[in-house]
Parts: sequence; structure tokens; C-alpha cells
Amino acid sequence: MPFELTILGSSSATPTQNRHPTAQVLNIRERFFLIDCGEGTQSQLVRYKIKYSRIGHIFISHLHGDHYLGLMGLLSTMHLQGRNNEIHIYGQQELMDIIELQLRLSQTVLRYNLIFHPVKNYSGTIILEDEDLSVSTISLNHRIPCTGFLFKEKPKPRKLLINKMKQYNIPFKYYAGIKNGENYEDDFGNIIPNKELTISAGRPRSYAFCSDTVYLEHLADEVRGVDLLYHESTFMHDLLDRAKATFHSTSIEAATVAKNAGVQRLVIGHFSARYKDLAPMLEEARTIFPESELALEGRKFVVHEQN
Amino acid sequence: MPFELTILGSSSATPTQNRHPTAQVLNIRERFFLIDCGEGTQSQLVRYKIKYSRIGHIFISHLHGDHYLGLMGLLSTMHLQGRNNEIHIYGQQELMDIIELQLRLSQTVLRYNLIFHPVKNYSGTIILEDEDLSVSTISLNHRIPCTGFLFKEKPKPRKLLINKMKQYNIPFKYYAGIKNGENYEDDFGNIIPNKELTISAGRPRSYAFCSDTVYLEHLADEVRGVDLLYHESTFMHDLLDRAKATFHSTSIEAATVAKNAGVQRLVIGHFSARYKDLAPMLEEARTIFPESELALEGRKFVVHEQN
Repeated sequence: MPFELTILGSSSATPTQNRHPTAQVLNIRERFFLIDCGEGTQSQLVRYKIKYSRIGHIFISHLHGDHYLGLMGLLSTMHLQGRNNEIHIYGQQELMDIIELQLRLSQTVLRYNLIFHPVKNYSGTIILEDEDLSVSTISLNHRIPCTGFLFKEKPKPRKLLINKMKQYNIPFKYYAGIKNGENYEDDFGNIIPNKELTISAGRPRSYAFCSDTVYLEHLADEVRGVDLLYHESTFMHDLLDRAKATFHSTSIEAATVAKNAGVQRLVIGHFSARYKDLAPMLEEARTIFPESELALEGRKFVVHEQN
Repeated sequence: MPFELTILGSSSATPTQNRHPTAQVLNIRERFFLIDCGEGTQSQLVRYKIKYSRIGHIFISHLHGDHYLGLMGLLSTMHLQGRNNEIHIYGQQELMDIIELQLRLSQTVLRYNLIFHPVKNYSGTIILEDEDLSVSTISLNHRIPCTGFLFKEKPKPRKLLINKMKQYNIPFKYYAGIKNGENYEDDFGNIIPNKELTISAGRPRSYAFCSDTVYLEHLADEVRGVDLLYHESTFMHDLLDRAKATFHSTSIEAATVAKNAGVQRLVIGHFSARYKDLAPMLEEARTIFPESELALEGRKFVVHEQN
């Protein structure tokens, strides 16, 4: 089952001819989560063939325009295309004020239910949880309140070894319990341990999205061991002062968080328009954390199932 | 001196892969006017090499998202790029509420002066006038208040015929008056008529932008004789009922306005996403008004100086 991140935008606030403001789509087990929604996100979704109708949840990190100005257009197009399914939006409470004002002035009554979930800038608050996954907040430190998001798969039921089911003649009614890790006791009182009957369906996968922020040493604790970490990297490290002044991070800082957190892979993005060539940015990050990649438009980062 | 319209967007509310929502730039004598500002306008400006810094005035016809959702991003980029020059925005009063809310929530204090000019949906109100041109309103009829804009060059001073100036030995101090149409009286009381001393510098050129509207018979009177008329044409004429229901126009209706108004050229746009091929749309308009053209992205419509 997929766990795949698609990058729709890599630029910081000033877009360039080839870079778009922040937006990403995370596909967890064929459920699609849109993370930030900069201007032009709907066009980027069309370009990368992700149907609007598949997106059920939208997460907005903060209210700087390059992270949300594509939202009204997307909501409007979903409406015009006749969407019926409800949509869930997660963001600062004031985002709903912006949405409501614009809907009211355009005299639009959405055809679908828009369910708004206000997000506060604390860490570790679970804002979405179901049988597949949980999403919790990561408190960041930017010029205005800004929240990252940690996506974690739920552990999946173990896979039954069908030949063992037959060998021990295990009735079907025990299958669900065995999938959940129970041992099996046969008619003679013999215990067959679960690990002889099943294999792991893969350990839960995880993705942490750390939008605009200054370098935070404690962030490593919050994203420890994730499979995939996105951390902004607006500047190269020679502009550390500029990064601090604007509440952004450098490539070295992003890579330091990745290294300290022991993540599997780092994706850096939110690049300043001043960098035409991003190779030096990537090279710099890799001096600290070799498994670094650039969040370029259209790139997909797949986290494979692992046993 | 140029009088040139550049199309940045041709689509109606749902954008397609190749079409962008409404936005146009009108260059009158090297002054740049942005008319409507759909999502992605800043990228389109970059694509067609029109510098943000040259735009001094922005006109927004109405508060449907496909006509203004690119505005906040553009204003923000102008700010980030260090703009100092003031900018004038013309639109419904509530547009300023949207701008103010978003600036406040992003804690942005613009580096430049934003001067907002509220526009009411009456016809014939002059909202901008100076030595080069005037802009007045055109009342349209859409689902929400919607205003078109009529741009008219001011008459230019007549051009002096320098050989005649010499022939009659006319002192320099009379030149300004003669440019403004005065005759010349020499020392012997002879009257030299102005038309012997000057030629016309070209008649004033004009452009009418008629954004979203149902067909309005009286509109022909308001845009009579303009050099260039933009009129929306969301649908072909077989969908007249749909056009009426959604307060839009068909190609036949747009062409009828152009014909009745005796304009020089018609540009149709705001095409429904259902039309992949626009040739039949254009053909249909041309059955009524042969000088019709499509408002395709990147197309320029030049009005030449005419004597």
C-alpha cells in the first residue's frame, strides 16, 4: 500500500518561472492529503494528474500567502465541478475567517460540507486519527504562528501464513485475533505462538512536514526516526544571519535536524528565488546528512513497506 | 506611442491545463494597467516578461475568485521585491476588506502605499483621469456586482509642421497655442489657419473591458465606436439557456454588442472549460462580427496611431 509524497511547489514567497509556492500531496494507502496550498496549486494538481476529488483533507501550516493563497481557488473549483464529498481543512482559526469572507462576497454556497478544524500551535496534539493513521501537530517558530504536521501510519494487522493455518487446521473465526497478534491454542491445549503463524505487515511509516521555521534544536526529538522529513531550507548557510532575521532555516540547519533525529531521508524546500542552481544547496545539506534530496516540482518520494 | 493589450488569462472559473483565469495588461503610452487578476497572474506576468514594477494601477471587475485571487500574491511579491512606488487599486469596497484581513493575519505592513479606490456599479463614473487618459465604469449585470472599464486616451496636441513654422517665421512662443489648435496671426494681420500649420497627432484610442455579464442590449451605446472591445463569451450560442442561467454571454451575443456598437475589433474570452477547441467559438462570433479574435494567453492586440 502506498506511502508517497508528491511535491507541487518548492519556492519561498517569491515564485520564479519554474518554481511554485509550497504545496505537497501525501498519499497514504490511497488516501490523499494536501499539505499547504500556495497560489497555483490547482494547476499543479492538474499537471501531476492528481484528481481534486481524491483529496479529502487539507492542512495549512500558517497564514503567509505562499502557503495558502491557492486554497480559495481550489475550493471554488471543487464546488464548480460538483463535488459532494465533505472536505476537512486544518489550520489556524483565522483561516476560516478568510474563507468565509470570500465565500460570502462571491455569494457562493458550497455544494459540499467544509469541516474546519482549528489548529493551535502546540506540539503533539492529535488533529486527525482513524484506523489508518494519525496526524499530530509540530510547533514551529516563525514570524507568525506556524505549525508542522506529523503523519504516522497505524500498525497494520499481521499477515496470516495460510499454509500454517491449514497445517494447524485453525478455524476461520480465530483469524482476526491472530492477525492482531494473538497466539492460538488448539483442542489439546497446545499454544502455537503468533510469530509462527504470521509475519509482520510492515512497520508503520511516518512523514514529518516542517514548514517555515527558524532552526529549533528540540525539533529533532519531535520528528525522531521518521521515514521522511521535509524541512524548509530557504537559504544556504552563508546567509545564516538572513535566515535568522526572517525566521527561516539554512540547508545546514535542516540537515542537522535530520541527522540529530536519525530520520531515513530528508527533503529540503522553500528555496529563495536568489538560487537559480540548487545543486550547491543540496551538496551543502549532504555534507551533514547524505540522504538529503531537493523538493523539486513533480518529484515523488516513496516510503516502501518494510518488514 | 503604444496602445497595446496583452492577454494573461482566457478561462472562466475552472482553469484548464492551458488556460488561466482572467487577467490582462493594457499598455497606454508606456503606462501599464492590470485588468482583473486571477490566480497565477504573477506567474503569467513573468512568462510574458511584464515587470511587476511597471504596473501602477489594478482594476478588479468583481469578487468572483477567478477575477481577483491572484491579487494578494502579486501585492505580496511587490512588497518582497522592495517596491516603493504607490499602487492604485480599483474595485468593489469589499475587496479592501479581503486585502486588509489577509495583510493583518500575515502581519504584513506593505512597503509601498496602496491607494484603494472603491468602485460602484454605475456606468459612466470617471475613476481615473489625468493628462494621458481617463478610465470610466461600465455597469454590467452578473450574479454579483460587476463593473467593466472604459479606457480612453486624451486627445494629443497636434504636430507642428516645422517647414511651415520657418516659412511664416513664427516665433517659438506661439508653438504651444498652435499645437492646441490656435490659428496664427502675423505682423500684417494675416490669419494662417491652424490646419495649414499642423497635422493631427492621431485620434484618441479606446478600449472597453466588459467582464462577466449577461447580454445587455444597451451596452452597445456605452462602448460605441471603441477601437478594441473585450466582451466575455463563456459559451457558444447553443448553450444560451446556460449562459442566461449563470449570468454569462455567448459568442453570438458578444459579437452582437460589437456589431451594434460599431467597434473596430472584438476580443472574446472567459471560455468555459468544456471547449477544448475554440475555433468553432471564433467562427460563430465571426458570422455576426468578422473582426472578432480569441483572447488567448500571450496574444497582443495593438491599436495603431491613426490620423
